[in-house]
Amino acid sequence: MKSKTSSHPISNPNAPSVVLVHPQMAENIGAAARAVLNCNITDLRLVNPRDGWPNDAAIPSSSGAMQFIPEIHTYSSVEEAVSDATYVYATTARARDIVKPVMTARAAASDMLKRQNSGEKVSILFGGERAGLTNEQLSLADSFITIPLNPDFSSLNLAQAVLLVSYEWAQAKDIFQDIVLPTGKSDFATKGMINNFFTRLEEELDAAHFFRNPDIKPTLIKNIRAMFTRAQLTEQEIRTLQGILSALIGKKSKPN
Amino acid sequence: MKSKTSSHPISNPNAPSVVLVHPQMAENIGAAARAVLNCNITDLRLVNPRDGWPNDAAIPSSSGAMQFIPEIHTYSSVEEAVSDATYVYATTARARDIVKPVMTARAAASDMLKRQNSGEKVSILFGGERAGLTNEQLSLADSFITIPLNPDFSSLNLAQAVLLVSYEWAQAKDIFQDIVLPTGKSDFATKGMINNFFTRLEEELDAAHFFRNPDIKPTLIKNIRAMFTRAQLTEQEIRTLQGILSALIGKKSKPN
Repeated sequence: MKSKTSSHPISNPNAPSVVLVHPQMAENIGAAARAVLNCNITDLRLVNPRDGWPNDAAIPSSSGAMQFIPEIHTYSSVEEAVSDATYVYATTARARDIVKPVMTARAAASDMLKRQNSGEKVSILFGGERAGLTNEQLSLADSFITIPLNPDFSSLNLAQAVLLVSYEWAQAKDIFQDIVLPTGKSDFATKGMINNFFTRLEEELDAAHFFRNPDIKPTLIKNIRAMFTRAQLTEQEIRTLQGILSALIGKKSKPN
Repeated sequence: MKSKTSSHPISNPNAPSVVLVHPQMAENIGAAARAVLNCNITDLRLVNPRDGWPNDAAIPSSSGAMQFIPEIHTYSSVEEAVSDATYVYATTARARDIVKPVMTARAAASDMLKRQNSGEKVSILFGGERAGLTNEQLSLADSFITIPLNPDFSSLNLAQAVLLVSYEWAQAKDIFQDIVLPTGKSDFATKGMINNFFTRLEEELDAAHFFRNPDIKPTLIKNIRAMFTRAQLTEQEIRTLQGILSALIGKKSKPN
């Protein structure tokens, strides 16, 4: 059976095929469908699903994704499921005795993108919930993907593994850029200090009849807090603001 | 209540605190515990979990993680849950009308790491399954995290969102990203408007005898200007600050 190409506008035929090998719970197939679609992949394939396919138990956990992936094809072997692929990755948590390249999910994603851009069709294998992929199935892959996680607690469920690998593929399509970073200061105020200042400021503003229209008071408070929060104040600055507040309302002593 | 520091070797007190705000299903709390521990985070906190805490329904989905996160503290408000943090990120799927930096999960992760390396404690807020975070809760954050996904199908379940953001944090320990300026807003205040405000503020502080020591007056003025400048104020915010100033000194009319 061939990979489908759906006419639905959400489909992305250029994306990898994601192959679940002998998955057990239909709920996990549904959750995997949701995860791939989150990442703009619609080519999901099953090899010998334990409980058969289609399976209504997959619908709730797919959270609507099944509507957009109308045909999830089943195959009787990994060989058949990857027959249209030019390059196959196998996800595995453990180092194996097969000598093949091992990539992180992030490195694999950028490798996938390069291959796609050269016209290749890539495929990613995920083993079943309990046993993972057999050595024979692993031998069909060109390289292995390992997701670097807490070495003391690295076990992911099937849908989470599918999500992370698919997410890395989706991120690799764009160059994501960061936000400018303020230079580090060692003495940023804690939220507790800042909230004490907000509370006092708002009490004083109340006393000064600043909130003339009670309907917009919550919005005003939200906006005032947003502007001071954005500045990411230091402890010294909170003390300065407390002093400013004391001075403006005519008190001689500075609290806090 | 304070952040715990566990003596278990798996714990990483330097990691962010992950705060689930009004989570509904205990199963999702367990799955979130598994996700954070996968990424070497053990500081998981709950604000008003719907079904109470501790809750045995969280144990199966945690897949053993609960053993390694012995104390998940609960709090009655977001303010309380982040009171020890110097910087707070809020995850949100939608653009909001609050003017704050919006970062991808990857950019945020690198931002977190730089802050941690400067001795900051960062916290990440996740809304409940159904409603997400309220505008009031969002206003407590310094910046927003958006996970770039398929725009036609971007909804993640709670544990998956926790996994992706935590995963990016875990990956960022090795990789630093590039820097870009936040997208501009058309209504940032001009320096002229800002300087008018500074001038008036300083005149009023003079009148209120705030600058008791003339030697340090220039330094104080510089510091006050720096903190307001850092917030990159909008025109509306300058008007609000002018109104606050008028109210605090007891004038009824707002100049400017």
